Amino acid sequence: MQYSRRHFIKTSAALATGLSVASLPAGVNAGQKGMKPSSSGNSLSSLLPAGGKTGGKAGGKAPSAKMKLSWKAYDLALKHTFTISGFSRKSTPVVLTKIECDGVTGYGEASLPPYLGETQASVIEFLKKVDLSRFSTPMHMEDILTYVDNIAINNSAAKASVDIALHDLVGKMIGAPWHNMYGLDKTEVPDTTFTIGIDNDEVVKEKTREALGDFNILKVKVGGPDDKRMIKAIRSVTDLPLAVDANQGWKERGEALDMIHWLKEEGIVMVEQPMPKLKLDDIAWLTEESPLPIFADESVQRLSDLHRLKGVFSGINIKLMKCTGMREAWKMRNLAEALGMKVMMGCMTETSCAISAAAQLYSGMDFADLDGALLIANDCFEGATLQNGKIIASDLPGIGVVPKKETAI
Amino acid sequence: MQYSRRHFIKTSAALATGLSVASLPAGVNAGQKGMKPSSSGNSLSSLLPAGGKTGGKAGGKAPSAKMKLSWKAYDLALKHTFTISGFSRKSTPVVLTKIECDGVTGYGEASLPPYLGETQASVIEFLKKVDLSRFSTPMHMEDILTYVDNIAINNSAAKASVDIALHDLVGKMIGAPWHNMYGLDKTEVPDTTFTIGIDNDEVVKEKTREALGDFNILKVKVGGPDDKRMIKAIRSVTDLPLAVDANQGWKERGEALDMIHWLKEEGIVMVEQPMPKLKLDDIAWLTEESPLPIFADESVQRLSDLHRLKGVFSGINIKLMKCTGMREAWKMRNLAEALGMKVMMGCMTETSCAISAAAQLYSGMDFADLDGALLIANDCFEGATLQNGKIIASDLPGIGVVPKKETAI
Repeated sequence: MQYSRRHFIKTSAALATGLSVASLPAGVNAGQKGMKPSSSGNSLSSLLPAGGKTGGKAGGKAPSAKMKLSWKAYDLALKHTFTISGFSRKSTPVVLTKIECDGVTGYGEASLPPYLGETQASVIEFLKKVDLSRFSTPMHMEDILTYVDNIAINNSAAKASVDIALHDLVGKMIGAPWHNMYGLDKTEVPDTTFTIGIDNDEVVKEKTREALGDFNILKVKVGGPDDKRMIKAIRSVTDLPLAVDANQGWKERGEALDMIHWLKEEGIVMVEQPMPKLKLDDIAWLTEESPLPIFADESVQRLSDLHRLKGVFSGINIKLMKCTGMREAWKMRNLAEALGMKVMMGCMTETSCAISAAAQLYSGMDFADLDGALLIANDCFEGATLQNGKIIASDLPGIGVVPKKETAI
Repeated sequence: MQYSRRHFIKTSAALATGLSVASLPAGVNAGQKGMKPSSSGNSLSSLLPAGGKTGGKAGGKAPSAKMKLSWKAYDLALKHTFTISGFSRKSTPVVLTKIECDGVTGYGEASLPPYLGETQASVIEFLKKVDLSRFSTPMHMEDILTYVDNIAINNSAAKASVDIALHDLVGKMIGAPWHNMYGLDKTEVPDTTFTIGIDNDEVVKEKTREALGDFNILKVKVGGPDDKRMIKAIRSVTDLPLAVDANQGWKERGEALDMIHWLKEEGIVMVEQPMPKLKLDDIAWLTEESPLPIFADESVQRLSDLHRLKGVFSGINIKLMKCTGMREAWKMRNLAEALGMKVMMGCMTETSCAISAAAQLYSGMDFADLDGALLIANDCFEGATLQNGKIIASDLPGIGVVPKKETAI
């Protein structure tokens, strides 16, 4: 039964990458000997894949499996104009990546909202510097991703596009979805928030009504003059729990606390980034006084930021594009839990590629904001899907995605 | 803990919104908004295993794959009498575990050196309380191991025996060794130390000579009156780097620092647990003053201990039997690195089962002390092997072990 399941998944992976099953690399199946109930008396060496006897690495994979990285710029068309305090836009540029190795293809993505500083040009510039041919196997992810991280500072989304493609590749080669390798129950995830954009009351009510069947928690961008009006308009339609994201919008802590008390009365359940990201003393005071949990977004980017945020925020918002990808996201999640902090999984506007990667590792978190792929009209991947208000990873190996035909990356 | 924590948060959130828990949104419609397959291309659902369409979990595994846990007490016969400051012994009791599921068997082990408080009886008592039949699949390791951890406090080795067997089982079902899933190069590991026991000069020299071809770093237990004599005896035979483990043996920090300065002159490269485990202020001073890195052993047990040791020790010694197994060891390793601390992998006297589990996750660490299985005359597993002074995991899936015929667990 196990064998057939794995065989099926590998078949799916092969189909997903457009290959025939027969062309799957021999090394992919190397681990299956161990699936047999161990018969006592076999010597270890007789059970090893051939590569193992000659010092081959990575579960018997051919020692010289070279990886090839490629990419394509792509523009996401937003279903609706997106407004947060400051500006509006109708599209988001991304770069789609893939890493091919031994006939298996892993897919990745860099999403580039304009306010974060990376562009399609800067991502491609970065990707041109990535020389994966120096590694003998994709299995050495720690070494590979450390090398990628050291190519240049910043460039977090570009790094994430390599990280995600590598995870997808390795997961497909192993034949398992990452949620299995992380040991997570993919269905035990928090409801995703769905953002209601800032607009006039009639539009807000209409958007809220549209969301009602599909979502169990909504999100509102606050920090401007429209906050109370927006909340009131939503509350005239639904009693669903609401999250608010102030995007650093409140400048004074007393004002912020007053607003949070008002929000609590209105059924808001959490607050993201209430004040400017460097005002940590004020935020620590606010978190101490606040009746609602306060999450860091702009104040936290990578693993190394986390330690100084204990006692400042209640929790952190982990986004793959900020933190360089799945590998560091997983470490941040574990570190935050070790520090006694809450954790949420967030996203940019991005395709089902990056959303599916995030969906592999957020089981057991406190909140989720994974509506990114639901906001675009030209998603070029199938993968994690919205089910009863939750984003649920597929059962395919790797990050669990299949590119749509027209993607042509 | 995940479950109860999340339940608590949801309850809190409900209370915060002024709603009753019962009135929380049940999440009615399974909307597929925005993530529907396009008309062109394969639809994702057609590629999913049957279980995927009906909300099946864990990569399409049959929902009722039950796990069976069993165990066997076993006594390890030491090749040589083992002496550390305090006492000597000729054997170490262990409990061997296995978890069977769908015809696949995972192996685990609890090693029980007498000074740590657990016994074969206490481990078996604990294992009797573990009801794995409540879980539908071994893939949900986080939930399962959180449940196991919450059965009772302490019992770390008993918990590790379940953790290791579960990792072995899941790795075999997935068909990959854990070092691949951790993304590590299994050969990029530090040399293992080999301990030269406290004895008279002739025996010490003889033991040192015997170790010379096989090991690149030796370890000496210090903290007693024989320290300098032992080091001198070894130094009369070899210039190999040496590690020392004081096992809390130095009672006064000035005396400890003097000794460390002497040791540095003799080519010692690291010091483990110089002073009593609770004397953190003295140890912090010592670490600050010491020309050698100072590692915590008795002062650190689990993930939750780690945070307060930053600035106290240079690094930590992670042992599966102390920290409840591979899952927490991996988190400790990542947390230590995030805190800027060094890491070493240690062990008890244990079979190649637990040693092979440790060998999956220590690539890239600073030091290793994994000679446990080399010290016993009746190792009942084949697995990781000594190669050029390093313990290298096999290429088999899971933890990479095969039980020897006589094990009959």
